[in-house]
Amino acid sequence: MAVEARLYNGTRDVLPEELLPRNALLKSLVATFESFGFAPLETPAMEYLDILLGKYGTDGEKLIYKLAYKGGEVLALRYDLTVPLSRMVAMNPELPLPFKRYQVQPVWRADRPQPAQGRFREFIQCDVDTVGTASLAADAENVAVVAAGIRALGLERFEVRINHRRLLRGMVEAAGLARSDEANVLRAVDKLDKIGREGVQKELSELGIAGDAQARLLACMDVSGGPEEMLRRAEEDLGSSEDARIAIRELRELLDFTAALGVDAERLAIDFHLTRGLDYYTGPIYEVRLLELENFGSLGGGGRYDDLMSIYGGTAVPATGVSIGLSRVLSALLKLGRLQPRSTPSQALVFRMADTPMVEVLKLCSELRTAGVPCEPFYEAERLKKQFQLAERKGIPCAVLLGSDEIAQGTATLKHLKSGVQETVARADLARRISELNRA
Amino acid sequence: MAVEARLYNGTRDVLPEELLPRNALLKSLVATFESFGFAPLETPAMEYLDILLGKYGTDGEKLIYKLAYKGGEVLALRYDLTVPLSRMVAMNPELPLPFKRYQVQPVWRADRPQPAQGRFREFIQCDVDTVGTASLAADAENVAVVAAGIRALGLERFEVRINHRRLLRGMVEAAGLARSDEANVLRAVDKLDKIGREGVQKELSELGIAGDAQARLLACMDVSGGPEEMLRRAEEDLGSSEDARIAIRELRELLDFTAALGVDAERLAIDFHLTRGLDYYTGPIYEVRLLELENFGSLGGGGRYDDLMSIYGGTAVPATGVSIGLSRVLSALLKLGRLQPRSTPSQALVFRMADTPMVEVLKLCSELRTAGVPCEPFYEAERLKKQFQLAERKGIPCAVLLGSDEIAQGTATLKHLKSGVQETVARADLARRISELNRA
Repeated sequence: MAVEARLYNGTRDVLPEELLPRNALLKSLVATFESFGFAPLETPAMEYLDILLGKYGTDGEKLIYKLAYKGGEVLALRYDLTVPLSRMVAMNPELPLPFKRYQVQPVWRADRPQPAQGRFREFIQCDVDTVGTASLAADAENVAVVAAGIRALGLERFEVRINHRRLLRGMVEAAGLARSDEANVLRAVDKLDKIGREGVQKELSELGIAGDAQARLLACMDVSGGPEEMLRRAEEDLGSSEDARIAIRELRELLDFTAALGVDAERLAIDFHLTRGLDYYTGPIYEVRLLELENFGSLGGGGRYDDLMSIYGGTAVPATGVSIGLSRVLSALLKLGRLQPRSTPSQALVFRMADTPMVEVLKLCSELRTAGVPCEPFYEAERLKKQFQLAERKGIPCAVLLGSDEIAQGTATLKHLKSGVQETVARADLARRISELNRA
Repeated sequence: MAVEARLYNGTRDVLPEELLPRNALLKSLVATFESFGFAPLETPAMEYLDILLGKYGTDGEKLIYKLAYKGGEVLALRYDLTVPLSRMVAMNPELPLPFKRYQVQPVWRADRPQPAQGRFREFIQCDVDTVGTASLAADAENVAVVAAGIRALGLERFEVRINHRRLLRGMVEAAGLARSDEANVLRAVDKLDKIGREGVQKELSELGIAGDAQARLLACMDVSGGPEEMLRRAEEDLGSSEDARIAIRELRELLDFTAALGVDAERLAIDFHLTRGLDYYTGPIYEVRLLELENFGSLGGGGRYDDLMSIYGGTAVPATGVSIGLSRVLSALLKLGRLQPRSTPSQALVFRMADTPMVEVLKLCSELRTAGVPCEPFYEAERLKKQFQLAERKGIPCAVLLGSDEIAQGTATLKHLKSGVQETVARADLARRISELNRA
């Protein structure tokens, strides 16, 4: 009963070459999250469909994987980590607030996948949220944690672009547009990077927005300069809008707080075009752009969403969160040549020589492991050439050859494959020498 | 459009109290796996149903969550990590063998959940497998990695019980039973711990096994003593069975290899009753029992399965693997009082005093984080009592109070909540002092 081995289109196996560096990145990200007091949370993959749709509405339904279940209610796979967080907070009224959590788990989207662009139907989402405080210090901590996290991952030249949903509202108002157009208008503006200015204007026209209103809106947004300069300009343009006044005050406070948290001012910029597609944002929003690679796009982003929790809880709970695009970061580091793909943690392959009993090979493996050198034995009795080939193919940097002479003399022959260095080393020094060669 | 927040029966949120210690355990497990040269692998949650059923057959179908999909083929959630591994190896013929991998991912079972016993419909599986070698050294490495892993997790008194599928076959043969009864008979014997000797005899009778055959079978199994003594006894009882002779030779070799790998002989025992329910094992099998707690059951186990891969690949690929029950280990450590549940990584809560600007609070947080002390600020302007309550409820061990006097003097007031110790500390010494108090 042979079954053809195959994978569902848009899903993939993640092999050691990718996971070894990815897990190292995650370890350092998690340490950064925890240094800010964020605690880990995991939620189930399966949620009731109506809970997922509570946020995304029936529009979202086609993007959600439903389960075939012979029961009353329909289950589905989570689509993001924000809905499960909201549901969890609503279900745990005794949870001490503010609740600061990070969550690193897969999500599933029944999207058209684009494997060449790294877009899959299952991917790891990496979120940090603070639930239960309206303080802008929490937003500032999100900006600081994402900046610290991305630096910890080895990226130096990036920029956190900041805007405020209520400032955008003020601009929509100042352009003379109806509140009911706001969501659609911002969704069009959000595509500026992708479809360009003309593309946005075309979309706005299709929404029935008149040319002069479009011009007024884009004039409010087309402001550049240092943060204070831009905020003063917004005060002049939008001072009559209460939303805008509140937004400007909050952005100033946010900048003070991020400075207090040690975020380099050069890593921050205000960007009045930034809208962050999702409708649920209510306050400051931000997005991280990589400057080291051109047109690389976003490494992550987030914002404040004070109303979302009320869908599940009845009462509104203020919240603010940020998501780091782990696979984007990984792909940036790869493009920049800052990741060494390895397909195994083994630093040495202990060969099996014809005259050496397997127990001797295993004893040496055990010695090396105890001394902190990950290693593996060659299992079969094979020609040396085959054993060297395996080391090459697996990317194991060192070969350790142990013949009967070496056993008698308490030594081993160590060969560093890349440099070709070969030497006889006393067993007591072997682990240290392997580490040295592999560091070089 | 309020939606009632609720969870699917048999699933759960895993909160920081459990995840903080669990992730620390995982980190140490993963380091042990990697020291043996095992590399990480992740596979998608969704697999084609026929691939999952290739192993479990239609019996398994009711335990598998199927997805509602409007396409030709039916998708389902993985039920274990062995089938995805087999599928992945079959799809990647260029993979250098042996492939040593560990995999820590959730699996889903449409079982009747028993939350009180810690059995959920979604749980993390933690597997280590070596694919592509028939060498018993790989089996020995599995025994060694599981023993080293469990010791690294802080459990000392445990026993790896070892048996061999072909020895069991020899016993079935020696009892005069038909080969076609083997699977059912072993499934009945497997329940010995749960239903006792009489229960097993009852099940065997229901299978139509005569009383004298039952007695012969159980007589072969009811042997105790040191490994060599037991193997000699099996040679006497079963020497005429080729399967038994091979099994005995392999078990001797396995014991030699585990000794070479530094596994304490006291941690190993042969157990002729051990059958490991699953039909797909073909060679050595083993199971880890905790001795520190009575009737605690298994912490994990595994064995060799040389035929499984052929379902997907056409050609058989020898394989051997072991699974560690992470949640079992966690629950054992909790029962033994060796885990400190913490609900936050924060070691200090920096209070917000009435006369202190938030920027000062955030600056101090930033200083502490840079000095390696995870911490968080109190976000709101609240009475001190409320701030102390939050520290208590979150289990944050230290409170740092920063008033205008302290700011002027470059100090802070540090209070260790459990001991009640309160002192004025220079800011430069604060991180060190917090670490000291929290270690004490």
